[in-house]
Amino acid sequence: MNIEIQPLNESAMQFARERQNQLTKPAGSLGRLEELSIQLAGITGKQFPQIKNKTIIVMAGDHGVVAEGVSAFPQAVTPQMVLNFLHGGAAINVLAKHIGAKVVVVDMGVANEIPTADEKLIRRSVGLGTQNQAQGPAMKRAQAEEAIQSGIEIALSEIANGADILGTGDMGIGNTTPSAAIACALMNVAPEKIAGRGTGVDDAGLKRKISAIEKSLQINKPNAKDGLDVLTKVGGFEIGGLAGVLLGAASKNIPVLVDGFISTAAAMLAVTLAPACKDYLIFAHRSKENGHALMLAWLNVKPLLDLDLRLGEGTGAALGISLAEAACKILSEMATFGEANVSQKEN
Amino acid sequence: MNIEIQPLNESAMQFARERQNQLTKPAGSLGRLEELSIQLAGITGKQFPQIKNKTIIVMAGDHGVVAEGVSAFPQAVTPQMVLNFLHGGAAINVLAKHIGAKVVVVDMGVANEIPTADEKLIRRSVGLGTQNQAQGPAMKRAQAEEAIQSGIEIALSEIANGADILGTGDMGIGNTTPSAAIACALMNVAPEKIAGRGTGVDDAGLKRKISAIEKSLQINKPNAKDGLDVLTKVGGFEIGGLAGVLLGAASKNIPVLVDGFISTAAAMLAVTLAPACKDYLIFAHRSKENGHALMLAWLNVKPLLDLDLRLGEGTGAALGISLAEAACKILSEMATFGEANVSQKEN
Repeated sequence: MNIEIQPLNESAMQFARERQNQLTKPAGSLGRLEELSIQLAGITGKQFPQIKNKTIIVMAGDHGVVAEGVSAFPQAVTPQMVLNFLHGGAAINVLAKHIGAKVVVVDMGVANEIPTADEKLIRRSVGLGTQNQAQGPAMKRAQAEEAIQSGIEIALSEIANGADILGTGDMGIGNTTPSAAIACALMNVAPEKIAGRGTGVDDAGLKRKISAIEKSLQINKPNAKDGLDVLTKVGGFEIGGLAGVLLGAASKNIPVLVDGFISTAAAMLAVTLAPACKDYLIFAHRSKENGHALMLAWLNVKPLLDLDLRLGEGTGAALGISLAEAACKILSEMATFGEANVSQKEN
Repeated sequence: MNIEIQPLNESAMQFARERQNQLTKPAGSLGRLEELSIQLAGITGKQFPQIKNKTIIVMAGDHGVVAEGVSAFPQAVTPQMVLNFLHGGAAINVLAKHIGAKVVVVDMGVANEIPTADEKLIRRSVGLGTQNQAQGPAMKRAQAEEAIQSGIEIALSEIANGADILGTGDMGIGNTTPSAAIACALMNVAPEKIAGRGTGVDDAGLKRKISAIEKSLQINKPNAKDGLDVLTKVGGFEIGGLAGVLLGAASKNIPVLVDGFISTAAAMLAVTLAPACKDYLIFAHRSKENGHALMLAWLNVKPLLDLDLRLGEGTGAALGISLAEAACKILSEMATFGEANVSQKEN
């Protein structure tokens, strides 16, 4: 990991803040959109940030911990959904098209062959799924490093190709289990506070899931001070990749929308590895998945949306990108009081 | 008022509900977007509702009650902002453009001349501002009827021109005061529970505002069972017009996004006049204005967004229309499990 992250550009933020007070509306009346425009000015260093080329990076991986019976869907669904992404039939394809974004699909470590010659699939597999973290480390430390490095490189490559905003998305049967384990390790809270029903496990499944996370934490003893150790012991390949995407975007002054539960676990790792990246992250939504609100509180961030989403894939990130674009347009396209000859507030 | 409103189409809703369970995602995982798609199927009576032509109707009016010192901005701002809407410089213009919607601007009763020959301005003025409701009725009952009828006619005209979704917006210096008074009258709660700072009054201004609403309710004694009486005594011309827009949309099976505080007061009037209209209304956001959450609770509805907006103009409605469009696209553009060869949930 060889990146540098600058603090936000204070003078661009100050410009945006003052500009918002000159636009033809009561000061502050566009609430979160105004705050977002100021953050985007700080991230990009531009007085009038523009969003033109939107890219959502969806990373797929499999998880040995599914052997513990933690998911409602079979592991075969991971490569099936990767094909669905490539063919344009998944929710993220529909929402990305709706907001005018490109979807980039990455195999970070799917267990089964993905039967396609489609060159749109970026193949950066770190392994054929992780090991069962309830019995030992999910991966080797070198694999964790590789996953993060791949995420950084993919982000930098998309940015070099013109992307001016990124969104993160995930696909991986079972991946709410490692995500919850990462959160428990970093926050030092009990699994039942964080683990939820994922794609829809029943009560017995949820019990198995909590038990698997407990075993994983007991056996592996991840070091909360060391993000790489947490990823190695209780993480996943796509989660490491997503942490890399967040770090890569921050290093290039590019805003990045963090999707839901899995992406937030990746954000917790990224912030542990490089605290300065946090200001570059825009949290898209509060997931319906159990512990997400606590994870957002640990990060001390407030998401934009609360629509009971719990799908992943970057679906919440897509909706958030549209709000970020709206925030930029408010800043650059609205008339000021002076330009529009509108009287200002009386004292 | 000569309209009929049908109940939602149950068979279209049932189709949408079943379709959502066949799409390649865990059932229910798109949360509010799924619910919205089902409501839109019920409203339109179509299995695959489509949103192509979006129109936001912004209605302007003035309020005699500003004589009580209830607003932070001078009354001259109302026509100035109407011109700003016509010239494309206001927040609603920017957000409408962002989502691909047309903005229709209506003078429902601005006090001062609007110095323009622009034919885009729809002139349906019911009077040069209302009377001071702290001293007597805001308008005559015939004016209240005319305001609602005009709103219905404008909605029907936009729908006849092809609009397949509407959004409401308002402009009127002082109009959070009559909106709060309407809410207090219908909910039978004290003004200090509902009145907020509007465009930004200070503590003394808020005190004057609460006092003006108290006087208005005491002097006029609006009959909560009679929506027309409430509008007559403590309402506003643009608020009556917006109630008419909501009724007109419902009568034509067209979904309509209700903006914030002022539009919600209009919705409370519309629902009092014709309870069947409620199912056609989609509440866009929770305003930061004080009593809005209570008003939404009285209506027993849950808004889509919570972004600390408090501008009006239809800005929240615009963002909500984009979500409604996304919900329709999910229903019609996603692949099913069968189509994409994706395995389903295990028992």
